[in-house]
Amino acid sequence: MTMTDPIADMLARIRNAYTVGHERVDVPGSKIKRAIADILKQEGFIHDYQWIDDGKQGVIRIFLKYGPGKKRVIQGLKRISRPGRRIYARKDQIPRVLGGLGIAVLSTSRGIMTDKQARAEGVGGEVLCYIW
Amino acid sequence: MTMTDPIADMLARIRNAYTVGHERVDVPGSKIKRAIADILKQEGFIHDYQWIDDGKQGVIRIFLKYGPGKKRVIQGLKRISRPGRRIYARKDQIPRVLGGLGIAVLSTSRGIMTDKQARAEGVGGEVLCYIW
Repeated sequence: MTMTDPIADMLARIRNAYTVGHERVDVPGSKIKRAIADILKQEGFIHDYQWIDDGKQGVIRIFLKYGPGKKRVIQGLKRISRPGRRIYARKDQIPRVLGGLGIAVLSTSRGIMTDKQARAEGVGGEVLCYIW
Repeated sequence: MTMTDPIADMLARIRNAYTVGHERVDVPGSKIKRAIADILKQEGFIHDYQWIDDGKQGVIRIFLKYGPGKKRVIQGLKRISRPGRRIYARKDQIPRVLGGLGIAVLSTSRGIMTDKQARAEGVGGEVLCYIW
């Protein structure tokens, strides 16, 4: 299946899975989406993810995290750069999300990383999305 | 009653009122908090507010807004500048909140205004809080 914006699709699937209270959600695989899932895990936004080899493009299975009273851990996800309108940040203009409450995910020359990592490494890049 | 940070107190009261599902919340009055309530109304985050003259400092009664299924309209409120650590933004560095999904409230030389208004007027100021 060809998609205009696979990252927007991934964010929408996570959003929808939370809305219906699912414990996990499957996303069509790609290297970049796997890197985003990895950051979500590192940052404590999800429990875990698995790469499932289906003999095709692969599937990323994301295990969502809930707090006490089934309160969702991810409050929001927003696509920033889009295929039709790419958004880049210079190394001295890496965005902060809600004053550090959330994260920005950037695609840099040194890989996919959070705004905090990009600031520490002194690299700019494409601002893929915000998670909070 | 003397408070260290009356604006933080206002945000906390709104947050708490949403948590318990109240329709309205009262906040000890002040000129700056009234201006913030006014912005919340203009921006559609609350239904309305009233100034109640109690013969003392006054009270701001805020009528909270809910969407379908009693979904809260204000998802989050975050104090940015604090009495112990003031945060200012220059006119060319007015923050964007979640890529425009939320607002920043600024105290400028031309009064209390949103990030959008500050950008339009070309003024910087103290970043009071983020609302989204």
